[in-house]
Amino acid sequence: MTDTDTDTDTDTVPATTDSALEAALAAAAAAATDATPGERAARLDRIADALDAAGPELIPLAARETHLPERPRLAGELARTTFQLRLFAEVLREGRHLDAAVDHADPGWPMGARPDIRRVRIPIGPVLVFAASNFPFAFSVAGGDSAAALAAGCPVLLKAHPGHEELSRRTGEIVRAALADAGAPEGTFAVVHGVDAGVTALRDPRIAAAAFTGSVRGGRALFDIAAARPRPIPFYGELGSLNPVVVTPAAAAARGERIAQEFAGSFTLGAGQFCTKPGLLLVPEGHGMDEALVAAVGGTSAAPLLNDRIEAALRARLDTVATTPGVELLAEGTGDGPVPTLLRTDAATFRAAGARLHDECFGPVSLLVTYSGTDELVALLSELEPGLTATVQGEPSDAAAVGDLLPALVAVAGRLLWNQWPTGVTVSWAQQHGGPYPATTAPTTTSVGTAALERFLRPVAWQNFPDELLPDALREANPWQLPRRVDGVPTATG
Amino acid sequence: MTDTDTDTDTDTVPATTDSALEAALAAAAAAATDATPGERAARLDRIADALDAAGPELIPLAARETHLPERPRLAGELARTTFQLRLFAEVLREGRHLDAAVDHADPGWPMGARPDIRRVRIPIGPVLVFAASNFPFAFSVAGGDSAAALAAGCPVLLKAHPGHEELSRRTGEIVRAALADAGAPEGTFAVVHGVDAGVTALRDPRIAAAAFTGSVRGGRALFDIAAARPRPIPFYGELGSLNPVVVTPAAAAARGERIAQEFAGSFTLGAGQFCTKPGLLLVPEGHGMDEALVAAVGGTSAAPLLNDRIEAALRARLDTVATTPGVELLAEGTGDGPVPTLLRTDAATFRAAGARLHDECFGPVSLLVTYSGTDELVALLSELEPGLTATVQGEPSDAAAVGDLLPALVAVAGRLLWNQWPTGVTVSWAQQHGGPYPATTAPTTTSVGTAALERFLRPVAWQNFPDELLPDALREANPWQLPRRVDGVPTATG
Repeated sequence: MTDTDTDTDTDTVPATTDSALEAALAAAAAAATDATPGERAARLDRIADALDAAGPELIPLAARETHLPERPRLAGELARTTFQLRLFAEVLREGRHLDAAVDHADPGWPMGARPDIRRVRIPIGPVLVFAASNFPFAFSVAGGDSAAALAAGCPVLLKAHPGHEELSRRTGEIVRAALADAGAPEGTFAVVHGVDAGVTALRDPRIAAAAFTGSVRGGRALFDIAAARPRPIPFYGELGSLNPVVVTPAAAAARGERIAQEFAGSFTLGAGQFCTKPGLLLVPEGHGMDEALVAAVGGTSAAPLLNDRIEAALRARLDTVATTPGVELLAEGTGDGPVPTLLRTDAATFRAAGARLHDECFGPVSLLVTYSGTDELVALLSELEPGLTATVQGEPSDAAAVGDLLPALVAVAGRLLWNQWPTGVTVSWAQQHGGPYPATTAPTTTSVGTAALERFLRPVAWQNFPDELLPDALREANPWQLPRRVDGVPTATG
Repeated sequence: MTDTDTDTDTDTVPATTDSALEAALAAAAAAATDATPGERAARLDRIADALDAAGPELIPLAARETHLPERPRLAGELARTTFQLRLFAEVLREGRHLDAAVDHADPGWPMGARPDIRRVRIPIGPVLVFAASNFPFAFSVAGGDSAAALAAGCPVLLKAHPGHEELSRRTGEIVRAALADAGAPEGTFAVVHGVDAGVTALRDPRIAAAAFTGSVRGGRALFDIAAARPRPIPFYGELGSLNPVVVTPAAAAARGERIAQEFAGSFTLGAGQFCTKPGLLLVPEGHGMDEALVAAVGGTSAAPLLNDRIEAALRARLDTVATTPGVELLAEGTGDGPVPTLLRTDAATFRAAGARLHDECFGPVSLLVTYSGTDELVALLSELEPGLTATVQGEPSDAAAVGDLLPALVAVAGRLLWNQWPTGVTVSWAQQHGGPYPATTAPTTTSVGTAALERFLRPVAWQNFPDELLPDALREANPWQLPRRVDGVPTATG
């Protein structure tokens, strides 16, 4: 997800004072993290219930601050948010995320006698989450990163995005009240406001990990701060993505018009303000889709962007792309404000232009590039910055050629799609939302899906401990009935 | 593991030239990573067999370069190394490390219709491994990081440690030949020599991750380089550790003499050149162990250190500790060269001294600190830099007091021990060798044990793909018979 989150303090909600920030950090550090998975699950369910109940208040507030439509968009996003909290609760009740392992003492272990050693993942500690501009619910106060960190058992400090500060303040109140009702300690969750508060917290030794969704520029600056700390911490940044779509010759011939319509729908969805917006449509020379694209994009309308800063940044970026020699306008939508715009060029121009054309445009803008064949396509893909997704629109008759293309696509993306569109990211067990930098700063992880909570756990081993001093997850009788690996053998409730 | 690896080129093996490094990087980037887990397992087994067979050549060579005794030490370390390779082969044959998940399309998914989406972990790409000084086999050319990366399916560039370059060269030849015999592509493995080659490779865009075992200073410098790249990469550094040992009053009273003997054995094992050497013995005031400690340490002998640089660094560090006001000599071993040395002070002096006393001494030196009670102990522990281990020597009667201490111990360590000693790190499913910085630069991971290979995998999702274009691990018929999570339900061979 990317935007131009030049984060300036607004007047909506005052910036968090130094003393309030200190109190929040101290409370987070003091918040006990010894709840059982079942207790944590109940807290997540309680938050989800409270947010669902507050929908009639929160949705109009979000619409006012972000210009996004209440329905289906914001209502759907709130539903996604509460679903996500409940899915993490399910993960906790299963317990497999703890990766518990018990190796009993074994005098015959081939490398030498093995002691009794048992490992389980514990909460990494207080987590700082930077909210995104473009998902006021799903990647904000009670969004994916907060849900994952709370599920992991970590206290959360949430840095509100300035694009929806009043919503953030109010959502934070609801989350805090729900946590208190569910018996969570004070300090489990707090919302802070203002750039300075965010940066100060990121440097604070009590913060053990951070998560961010936003622009490459903003995310890199924060990543650099996290890496430069006396004690560096994991920084999970979800940054930029171009999301290339490859249309095969057979697909262009068989259903060019339908592809044009679906593509126009995808790159203008949410006014193009999605991290997974398809920003590059790669079509074969002689594709014959121009007319269909002009009609499809012509049928789309301008929609207000999230805020003035994003609109100004889009205009500047669009100007750069549109004035690149060899780039021309192919199609435009209608209406006032930032109209959906499709530009076009050829592969040689695109490849020679570098960042000028390869960088993301955050908004309803995309670029069509024609290619001559698989070789040129592979060369072009290998020059892209890695991103979150790569899509193929193909036909069964293309399977062999697409097979040749797949290694180049896998190299630059965390999720590959076939005959679907990258916008609309489901939350499920198999979801992967990540990729090599700059898709994310942590390519071994995901920020969407059940695996997202693993980012906030660290393993600890207990060697030769008496049973009564072991954490419950590792006791011989397995009181939590966890799935565990025992002496190398996975068991359902070992 | 820590040493003062001020890495200077030696004359033993010439530094890798720029053109040779370029060739190695290009070959690594071109090495196909599409072997099946079974094929990769066979490669690891082949390397293990070749190293075992070469023991009679390699062990004397290692002894000559490192001054470590051939038996039991180096022979045991080689056995550990080949065991580790074979254990990773077992991990591959099981397949659970791939974390394969299949979510079928579900129109009734609560947050909105779910597409068919399937995730599996793939090799992250070429891995650069910096070898350690103190384990010429187990954390060097064919050591833990190399084994983990190869098991993950990643080509490996191994930067040899200057302390055993001839052994590294020769081990590299054996590994390369074994890989070639097993059908691995050229470029799967190469050894490079020299500081410049290591740093150049770390900056190269073809390197996707790096691993390091060594000093805080050296590791932090490399971590900073990895983080400053235009595209940062994961850097898994295993750096320093003080490894505190707490002796409870009851344990001191019940078996002070035995504890003294075991402690002297542990901190002088391998001439104290282990990352897990107990560098801090915390004993209650009035512990009555002085005589036993003087006798136990007095019974130990000096042993040659790995190299002159390490000896010089130890002398400097020992001088700093010994000349700190309030610190005095308690016990010494015998012999020429760096004799085992135990110093002592009280908690107030230790806490006031900061890094001067808290930093690790790499070599056969440890510091005894007396404490007044649990409160002082908790305060002292909370001021330590996190490390790899923390140990308690206690009695059943202490369980309640130790329970109060455990949160402070967990906060500063990746592995806790009860009535054993931290040196001697078993390789098993439940092992955890890591911890918050500076124990490691990546606290969510381990560098020892089967979970170590997860550091070199990144997840990729395939959405809506026809079966014939899916990777084998994700095909509907599950041709590899992998354990998979299907629609949220873990299955044995789903």
